[in-house]
Amino acid sequence: MERLDDVDGLARRRGFYWPSFEIYGGVGGLYDVGQIGLRVKHKLEGIWRRFFLEGLSLPMVEVETPLITPSRVLEASGHVSSFTDPLVECPSCHRVYRADQLLEAKLGVNAEGLGIEELNALFQKNDVRCDACGARLGGVKTFNLLFKTNLGPFTSDVAYVRPETAQGMFTSFKRIFEASRRQLPLGVAQVGRVARNEISPRQSLIRMREFTIMEFEFFFDPADLQAAMSALGDMAAESLNLTLADGRELTLTPMKAVSTSHVKTPWMAYFMEAALQFLLNLGFKSEEVRFVEKGDKERAHYSAQTFDVMIPTKRWGLVEVAGISYRTDYDLRNHSIKSGQDLSVSVTLEKPFLQASRRVVAHADAVRVDFGEHSGEVLAAISTLDPSQVGQEVELNLSFGRVRLGPRHFAVQVEERLVSAKKLIPHVVEPSFGSERLLYALLDRSLVIKEGRVVLALPSSVAPYDCSIFPLVKRDDMGSMAKRLESELREAGYSVFYDEDGSIGKRYARSDEIGIPVAITIDQRSLEDNSVTVRDRDSWKQWRARSSELAEILRRVLSGKSLISLGLEEFSRRPPKGKKAGG
Amino acid sequence: MERLDDVDGLARRRGFYWPSFEIYGGVGGLYDVGQIGLRVKHKLEGIWRRFFLEGLSLPMVEVETPLITPSRVLEASGHVSSFTDPLVECPSCHRVYRADQLLEAKLGVNAEGLGIEELNALFQKNDVRCDACGARLGGVKTFNLLFKTNLGPFTSDVAYVRPETAQGMFTSFKRIFEASRRQLPLGVAQVGRVARNEISPRQSLIRMREFTIMEFEFFFDPADLQAAMSALGDMAAESLNLTLADGRELTLTPMKAVSTSHVKTPWMAYFMEAALQFLLNLGFKSEEVRFVEKGDKERAHYSAQTFDVMIPTKRWGLVEVAGISYRTDYDLRNHSIKSGQDLSVSVTLEKPFLQASRRVVAHADAVRVDFGEHSGEVLAAISTLDPSQVGQEVELNLSFGRVRLGPRHFAVQVEERLVSAKKLIPHVVEPSFGSERLLYALLDRSLVIKEGRVVLALPSSVAPYDCSIFPLVKRDDMGSMAKRLESELREAGYSVFYDEDGSIGKRYARSDEIGIPVAITIDQRSLEDNSVTVRDRDSWKQWRARSSELAEILRRVLSGKSLISLGLEEFSRRPPKGKKAGG
Repeated sequence: MERLDDVDGLARRRGFYWPSFEIYGGVGGLYDVGQIGLRVKHKLEGIWRRFFLEGLSLPMVEVETPLITPSRVLEASGHVSSFTDPLVECPSCHRVYRADQLLEAKLGVNAEGLGIEELNALFQKNDVRCDACGARLGGVKTFNLLFKTNLGPFTSDVAYVRPETAQGMFTSFKRIFEASRRQLPLGVAQVGRVARNEISPRQSLIRMREFTIMEFEFFFDPADLQAAMSALGDMAAESLNLTLADGRELTLTPMKAVSTSHVKTPWMAYFMEAALQFLLNLGFKSEEVRFVEKGDKERAHYSAQTFDVMIPTKRWGLVEVAGISYRTDYDLRNHSIKSGQDLSVSVTLEKPFLQASRRVVAHADAVRVDFGEHSGEVLAAISTLDPSQVGQEVELNLSFGRVRLGPRHFAVQVEERLVSAKKLIPHVVEPSFGSERLLYALLDRSLVIKEGRVVLALPSSVAPYDCSIFPLVKRDDMGSMAKRLESELREAGYSVFYDEDGSIGKRYARSDEIGIPVAITIDQRSLEDNSVTVRDRDSWKQWRARSSELAEILRRVLSGKSLISLGLEEFSRRPPKGKKAGG
Repeated sequence: MERLDDVDGLARRRGFYWPSFEIYGGVGGLYDVGQIGLRVKHKLEGIWRRFFLEGLSLPMVEVETPLITPSRVLEASGHVSSFTDPLVECPSCHRVYRADQLLEAKLGVNAEGLGIEELNALFQKNDVRCDACGARLGGVKTFNLLFKTNLGPFTSDVAYVRPETAQGMFTSFKRIFEASRRQLPLGVAQVGRVARNEISPRQSLIRMREFTIMEFEFFFDPADLQAAMSALGDMAAESLNLTLADGRELTLTPMKAVSTSHVKTPWMAYFMEAALQFLLNLGFKSEEVRFVEKGDKERAHYSAQTFDVMIPTKRWGLVEVAGISYRTDYDLRNHSIKSGQDLSVSVTLEKPFLQASRRVVAHADAVRVDFGEHSGEVLAAISTLDPSQVGQEVELNLSFGRVRLGPRHFAVQVEERLVSAKKLIPHVVEPSFGSERLLYALLDRSLVIKEGRVVLALPSSVAPYDCSIFPLVKRDDMGSMAKRLESELREAGYSVFYDEDGSIGKRYARSDEIGIPVAITIDQRSLEDNSVTVRDRDSWKQWRARSSELAEILRRVLSGKSLISLGLEEFSRRPPKGKKAGG
């Protein structure tokens, strides 16, 4: 018997998500997002876009690049050599494990990021055995997590399914930059699927082999601290709960996190704070959100600093819903070198400045007079003098002897040049959210049991529908009034779940289970006086409202007001009998 | 020198799309959608969703399934064996061609769908030679277009990147059905990436190796003609331009197309009409849209009938932007057989009916009296009588001799049963749009040259921004008024392109090139009387408007009104000098 509080069970039953290709026995780590879950996921993506791409008053653009990626790109980015997990295969039954996770489960040690030899030593020392057949395990190998394929008919044209969307933005950075305002900073976002051939996919939506990420590469000039500090200064500064790589736990404002150097660049701190605000918008609490710094060995190869953004779930404990990485100029620099293309950009400086430059100028006439046939050699020697080192006089050993040169022979000229542009390879901070993990965390925290029934108390901003509409009984007159209200509310921009099948109790139960905040019912009285009942998902309380008020009531509820606060007439029809979920 | 009317050039320059991984020389058939193109693409997807999923008053849901697909699924669907193109490789320089397309280009014949032997015969007979080295070509092979990969660490677990989103919906059909209202018809939609390892990708966005499709599988009961015919009857019946597989061209209403059997099932005709209406909404003209039936050899293996939806482009002639296929129960039936899972569904009938059934009932007592020790054999014989054949009397040859049985020994009873549900494997019609092709066709038809400059006359519903806002010159007072208007219009729900860099002429040119219908400029007079100039992209005419009217002006323009019709004060500032594009 399925437990009522099992998120996966609810998800399967009510169309949030389920394992893909189930009729063929399923495939580990592949999930479908069903018709109800996708509505929530689309809302999450919309909120993410509005918050990060439009809401921060930063220049942000969004692009879309292919999943199929030629090998050269992922060789340059380091993924072909470094995007690996350690694998151990049972020599007897050939079951395969992810070596570090197996050691963690068996020995309770943190083995993430250990080298092959260290892992092998742990296997040997602790006599770790196969769960399936009991054979002794060892001989850890490196397994690359890229899904490999070929482009076109030749097997030599190796390609991979992208493991992150980032490389598409890096390789096309110049195009994107040139079609934009050609200024830094510039955020380049992408929402798309990525695939990682996990050895042991597990934990439902938490470790999938294919999933959606919402991420952006934020390109900036690392020397321009002012832009970052001023953006940071303008932010509401909710403190960040940090767990540093050395295990220390600190709670700091983002500004303080930068000034104490716990966070390595101001834009990192800025986007950590932004990520926190985004999660608060989704109903998570500040004290639930923790930024966990990855250690040197755990961090991806491209990162100078990474914080995982962790939030608690009932079933899987702390879950990483986002990662914020300081990728520096690692990717652009490597692509520059490997492609032979200059990926630096020239940006106009906000404040042009005068740059003094010194150069040594020979007085050729005097040199020729003083040195005759040797003047060529002397002039050449003068041209190699270092203008920053040379004084008014200099002694040189030349082929024809030692000479002493003075102001008669050369001068150091100082020139001032107006510098109004600057060439650089931008640095990058990358905040990356996992859509399905965020969806899971939302469902997990929203699922409550009330009187033996499941209620999904989703924030109304991410509910799959704004309201449900039911005729109390399946009767033509109630049905047509309900349909009319449905289309009126749709016209007004609200999403409506219309349902007329089965008992009203079952329909309320279904509406509650998929998290619809408001249920509107048309009954006998509705036909007489145009009033309807309005039911609150969480309290199951009902009120009476004029049908003409519904749009305004929904507007208020969706902007965060509770139905209770609206001062409507309370309605006393006995709530439907408690029934088990699943009806 | 790039031609002004080159869509690809404009796309690259202005951020609509460009070849992916260009810094590594590019990969045939892979394109990025840039920051401007993606805004248009997202609008196309939104319009598609509103039109097909919400606007047709049909039960439609949307899901999301993985790209990585285990081989069993695509074996059952027939793709592993049938999703192929004929390939010919030059024996000398090893250049590879798609055999049928090469023959079409060289000989001007329609070679699509020909078998390997027919193709080889054409190569031999016509002495077809390699473009690159002149060697004689032949030896056509079959090349599978699926991108092949492996799931997990074992190479035996073959998987593919999906070539269509459909199989994810078929394999999970039961789950989707059960989490919905469990009624037919039911449309299951998906918008997502698919990949096809084309031998010769070409023609910009027209033949890509990875692209987005917007499609749905419309599941229906083929016996329930009434539902389809009544939906068809409710539609505005713009006539369809058909080119039949035999080459005949007809223009028929969808109803007529069904009644004449040119279209094989009413839901096909319904969605052909819907596809036409959708394209009319995007600004295409009825006479431009042509439905071209695929011949028996050209059609995909799963299809009983397919119409390609073709629209003209300046560069590539008629381009297929959608395909509408009658997939029957091919996919669900094959998955049922191959997975061993029953994929039929039981649906409640709208109108339950009484079904009469007859059965033969023996009068055992009389049989025992009349036949004694042989009564067992007689009773067994009676139980095998066919109730639909037997009369009041029957003669049987039994082991102990010939017997004659009458009403004393058996009776035929008629029973009536109320049939209120029905089990069936639904049939499927699949309308499938290619996002990037639609994007291309829109750009192609919208690009016009006006006085030596490019104007992209996109319908305002798919313009990347609703308006642009410019301070006439980069000055603090104009800038802050422009920024204030920008945020007011954003608040009101409009998308705004703010630009203050460079001359006003260059900014107008850029705004025109990316297709923004309205440009708003803040000038000296704005600071005095709060009026602004409003400029029409297509006519370059300008008017004076109060800044408080802007939201209302935009609302009217976006609902299809022209600025000219609004009766604003004409503005006479001389339009900026004609400049070449690209500034």
